[in-house]
Amino acid sequence: MMDGPGIIRDETGAQTLLGYVVDISAKDGKGRCVLDVGAQHGNRHGVLHGGIIACLLDNAMGYGAAVHVSEDGSAKFLTVSMNTQFIAPAPGGRVIATGKITGGGRNLMFAEGELHHEDGRLLATATGVYKKVAEGRG
Amino acid sequence: MMDGPGIIRDETGAQTLLGYVVDISAKDGKGRCVLDVGAQHGNRHGVLHGGIIACLLDNAMGYGAAVHVSEDGSAKFLTVSMNTQFIAPAPGGRVIATGKITGGGRNLMFAEGELHHEDGRLLATATGVYKKVAEGRG
Amino acid sequence: MMDGPGIIRDETGAQTLLGYVVDISAKDGKGRCVLDVGAQHGNRHGVLHGGIIACLLDNAMGYGAAVHVSEDGSAKFLTVSMNTQFIAPAPGGRVIATGKITGGGRNLMFAEGELHHEDGRLLATATGVYKKVAEGRG
Amino acid sequence: MMDGPGIIRDETGAQTLLGYVVDISAKDGKGRCVLDVGAQHGNRHGVLHGGIIACLLDNAMGYGAAVHVSEDGSAKFLTVSMNTQFIAPAPGGRVIATGKITGGGRNLMFAEGELHHEDGRLLATATGVYKKVAEGRG
Repeated sequence: MMDGPGIIRDETGAQTLLGYVVDISAKDGKGRCVLDVGAQHGNRHGVLHGGIIACLLDNAMGYGAAVHVSEDGSAKFLTVSMNTQFIAPAPGGRVIATGKITGGGRNLMFAEGELHHEDGRLLATATGVYKKVAEGRG
Repeated sequence: MMDGPGIIRDETGAQTLLGYVVDISAKDGKGRCVLDVGAQHGNRHGVLHGGIIACLLDNAMGYGAAVHVSEDGSAKFLTVSMNTQFIAPAPGGRVIATGKITGGGRNLMFAEGELHHEDGRLLATATGVYKKVAEGRG
Repeated sequence: MMDGPGIIRDETGAQTLLGYVVDISAKDGKGRCVLDVGAQHGNRHGVLHGGIIACLLDNAMGYGAAVHVSEDGSAKFLTVSMNTQFIAPAPGGRVIATGKITGGGRNLMFAEGELHHEDGRLLATATGVYKKVAEGRG
Repeated sequence: MMDGPGIIRDETGAQTLLGYVVDISAKDGKGRCVLDVGAQHGNRHGVLHGGIIACLLDNAMGYGAAVHVSEDGSAKFLTVSMNTQFIAPAPGGRVIATGKITGGGRNLMFAEGELHHEDGRLLATATGVYKKVAEGRG
């Protein structure tokens, strides 16, 4: 079971509802979201719902932005836009979304993300634009 | 309370988990997903999570594709790629995602979607590419 | 031939090279780019190159942003990100890209665009994020 | 000057017009497009036009798809959709777009692309969906 510094559970309502774990423990500039896929995450085809894939990738990229500018990941970002490519279906097991910053300035940052199955297959990719929330807000 | 022909509840695990209602009752070529936003849908900013917005738009566009080719919406589509623009935050209340087909052929279709708050504000837009699942599969 | 107030030719190197005309004469909040497709715009399939389609849509959306905040369209915007869906091929004739703002704030704006053939067919759609350039720059 | 096997010039009208060189000589599964930026490629800000950036990335990804399925890059693909993130401006000099396949099946493939300046800076990223053209067509 994942636990310890940099492992974040139940930070938000959506995270609790979907049941994923945020992992920023690696100190490698990446944000990660880990989900053990269950029947409650399924779509009409009985595989992981594309919208939940987008959720994981969005959060991984947002945490990639957060750790890029704050060691503890406490900086907050709004998603401006994101794009997801659904490369392969995820029938079950554990999936890991990874996000990191590719460039940008102080306020607007560009990120990319990948969703892998625990068996190593690439399931989805994403890109996104993130905007830093001014301190005192959010 | 929404009910009757063309109102679809709990069709998938993800739909039950997130708690939205699919509405294809209007026979206007559009798919709709309706969500009453609660604390369980919130992000780090306390507003509707972008990933859940993507879920609703993806499903509304997928149902837009389904009703485009099958009167009862039973045709199934896979999401190939989708893009979401997060225009305004959704603090609470009811939100409605609407999706429709803009073009394409028999197998690959292009869709666009909009998420409105019940007060009329445009909260997000989306575009997506959808692929028809061959009958007998999915 | 298109001419008169709100018709912009040869404003930039790229515009001259590609040969399209910008039209912001309609005062309807939309930017337009008009191109008469020739062999010099063709791709490997002998139809209008997707990259040139993206050029036209990007410029139409950028001018949509410009006329949204300045009557004469003189305000300048940078493209942050854009997404294009290629719905149908454009074998020849005149094509018109139209762009308009869907929302946003003072600095960051969201736009959508459509490319139509002069015969009315929808050829491509786009969405984009645009950032206002501070006065005195650009 | 670039020349030799795998260097493609003037294959299409758009390529001649924009003046970029296609390079599939590396046999590393990537397509490349190289452009020496001139005034004719400029936008309203006097830097490389975003639409031309999209052109280069689209072609690099399309060639990435082509070399993925045919050693000589002769297989042809249509762009279904593409997304571009404009990370940094390109004031001049040489830029190189690189594209490769990230996944997909026989007909529909997913690609990602990057545009670098010759000095190593990342200027833009892209993702795209490509569809194989049936032989005998295109």
